[in-house]
Amino acid sequence: MTTQELLIKAKEAKAEINLVSVDIINSALNAMADALVENIDKILEANSQDIEKSRGVISDVMIDRLSLSPERIQGMADGVRDVAKLPSPVGKVLKSNEPQEGLIIERTSVPLGVVAIIYESRPNVTSDAAALALKSGNVCVLRCGKEAHSSAKAIVEALQSGLEKEGLSKDFVLLVEDTTRASAAELMTADGYIDLLIPRGGKGLINACVKNATVPVIQTGTGICHIYVDESADIEMALNIVENAKTSRPSVCNAEEVLVVNKNIADEFLPKLKKRIVTDRMENPVELRLDERAIKIIDGTPAGENDFDTEFLDYILAVKIVDNVDEAIKHINLHSTGHSEAIVTSDNESAEKFTRGIDSSSVYVNASTRFTDGGEFGLGCEMGISTQKLHARGPMGLEELNTYKYIIRGKGHVR
Amino acid sequence: MTTQELLIKAKEAKAEINLVSVDIINSALNAMADALVENIDKILEANSQDIEKSRGVISDVMIDRLSLSPERIQGMADGVRDVAKLPSPVGKVLKSNEPQEGLIIERTSVPLGVVAIIYESRPNVTSDAAALALKSGNVCVLRCGKEAHSSAKAIVEALQSGLEKEGLSKDFVLLVEDTTRASAAELMTADGYIDLLIPRGGKGLINACVKNATVPVIQTGTGICHIYVDESADIEMALNIVENAKTSRPSVCNAEEVLVVNKNIADEFLPKLKKRIVTDRMENPVELRLDERAIKIIDGTPAGENDFDTEFLDYILAVKIVDNVDEAIKHINLHSTGHSEAIVTSDNESAEKFTRGIDSSSVYVNASTRFTDGGEFGLGCEMGISTQKLHARGPMGLEELNTYKYIIRGKGHVR
Repeated sequence: MTTQELLIKAKEAKAEINLVSVDIINSALNAMADALVENIDKILEANSQDIEKSRGVISDVMIDRLSLSPERIQGMADGVRDVAKLPSPVGKVLKSNEPQEGLIIERTSVPLGVVAIIYESRPNVTSDAAALALKSGNVCVLRCGKEAHSSAKAIVEALQSGLEKEGLSKDFVLLVEDTTRASAAELMTADGYIDLLIPRGGKGLINACVKNATVPVIQTGTGICHIYVDESADIEMALNIVENAKTSRPSVCNAEEVLVVNKNIADEFLPKLKKRIVTDRMENPVELRLDERAIKIIDGTPAGENDFDTEFLDYILAVKIVDNVDEAIKHINLHSTGHSEAIVTSDNESAEKFTRGIDSSSVYVNASTRFTDGGEFGLGCEMGISTQKLHARGPMGLEELNTYKYIIRGKGHVR
Repeated sequence: MTTQELLIKAKEAKAEINLVSVDIINSALNAMADALVENIDKILEANSQDIEKSRGVISDVMIDRLSLSPERIQGMADGVRDVAKLPSPVGKVLKSNEPQEGLIIERTSVPLGVVAIIYESRPNVTSDAAALALKSGNVCVLRCGKEAHSSAKAIVEALQSGLEKEGLSKDFVLLVEDTTRASAAELMTADGYIDLLIPRGGKGLINACVKNATVPVIQTGTGICHIYVDESADIEMALNIVENAKTSRPSVCNAEEVLVVNKNIADEFLPKLKKRIVTDRMENPVELRLDERAIKIIDGTPAGENDFDTEFLDYILAVKIVDNVDEAIKHINLHSTGHSEAIVTSDNESAEKFTRGIDSSSVYVNASTRFTDGGEFGLGCEMGISTQKLHARGPMGLEELNTYKYIIRGKGHVR
């Protein structure tokens, strides 16, 4: 099937899915979870083909992300079942209005339509994304990286068999067969076919989408997250928060990449920080990349030109000293990706300035940036973390995969 | 001032406007309204220069749109005062969550930042758009067509004097000086400077924005609106609704352009419709453009290739006959611009199919499409009517000019 043929199928399926009830959707999700478990052997076989082909081609970390096990597939099935249990976001009356007697205007949540996801090598994204799209009433078009394609194909076939078991069209979840760049480009410009495109992957993919897409796109995931330690910060609290944000899971997008320190606390704070996250750490001590003021206080690598604009995703932390909270805000707004930033302070005025002034999806006072997550934010799930401002910002759950329309019922009303 | 210099000023002003209270914004709006009235003579003089230059160059209808009078300027000032009276959309806690004791997560409405509007020749858009942007906490960048530039300049100078009177920066409302295509292109690609671009104008402008813009855009205003007269329709109601939607104000985007009629009611309905909107109308009888089935029932112009894809904005109506509601939905979703569509029916099942199946911002049952309007929908005002699905759909008011961010307050919480 060509990508164009697949897009036509998706568009036809969109008209069909609109008529399916919430209960049937939930049954289908459970059937899809069952089918994943029933097809564990097939999926593992496909996965080992992918791994075979990728050995020596991609890094060990990537191989690990790509690898499935019976437990991981079981986990994917459990994830789909969890999505079935969440409340449906569709058909809620968000606002209503009666400008004339008997003329009722209701703003009602409805699915976006066809949601396409371009992702890389994690096979679990296949079932996660399909479940979230379907639960929110959308047809799902998946396009994964070539190294994970056999796994994704086996997973999608299992999911489709679940759909068919409940009498639904297997076209509600579609996998693009072509894994060359051509298919990504086709999705980006599939006006009239795709209602939302979500790129999940590295900066290159996301930038390509922003630049080339003519369909609506939500940028996700790139996080150059900052923590600003204010003059008035509780030093122990600041150490805990920085250590947690930097070292608890450095490979994720809500991990800290840049530390900004007020000059009046730097002499006391930086040596303690160095002890905490460099000297005292047996495994994975953090490499500090210090600006010209910080390097006068502690030892470390002098920060290079790009260190304040890099998502390290590693045990590396860039450190900058500023004169005050205003300079911190200015620096952060210039260099951040709009994901998550935190201030550690005991001064309400600084906190207020920071929360108002920082132009990011999630702004923290005295807490770690690591909390930016659909589960923690009470969404129950997550399709990605939007770093843009229109439509959805921060963690995207089921509601964010809906739009609304106005449904107006009258009795022959004219204006 | 070059466009680039202006964008830098706008970005700086964005940091400033975040710190201004709602009361000051409202006082400034009233001062801006006063300044419009105080500067009536200056504005009229600039306007007469614009008209002088445009005579013979643009149509009389366009000249009329461009022309100001003391009453029209007074009306603009009243509009600005009305906006001051509306509740502020900024700083509302939309959702909150406490995943751990003392860790409070609040989804809070915040301004988008810098909102740019590209529009054509109506001078009143200048003050309307500036007032709505400012009220919703945004810096406003205006770029009008060259035929209205002198008027817009005089209006913006008056608005800026109002801002300064309240001690605010005049950079909260900025007018792009360059009226060539280059400046429009610059705005479309001003990544990092413009948070939302709203094109208000013809199809050409909107398509250019969609195709070329790398900044976030909301498409507005193009309306190829359909009315479907179902087999079960009350014929008198259908006649009233079609007449109202087509003839009450054909130049606006919520006017009907295409009539879709069920074949089982067409023999009775179409002759009555012809009498009502063609034969009996003394002024401006409607020209019917009939498909091959309709032309067998009544006289009219045979519909040409493009008649079902044209926003006539005139006393012209394309007419198509379909077999059933499903065919109507299919035709409409293929040819509509996603603005407003209506069904006239007395059958609940058809109504339900139609409201679920039609993929437009506003879907009517037994009412005229002419109600799609910010005022009628209870928004109190309107920045345009979005025909896209992300962020805002249908009439956009103050809330739609905001985004949200998560503000998270903890006591040293780590994950």
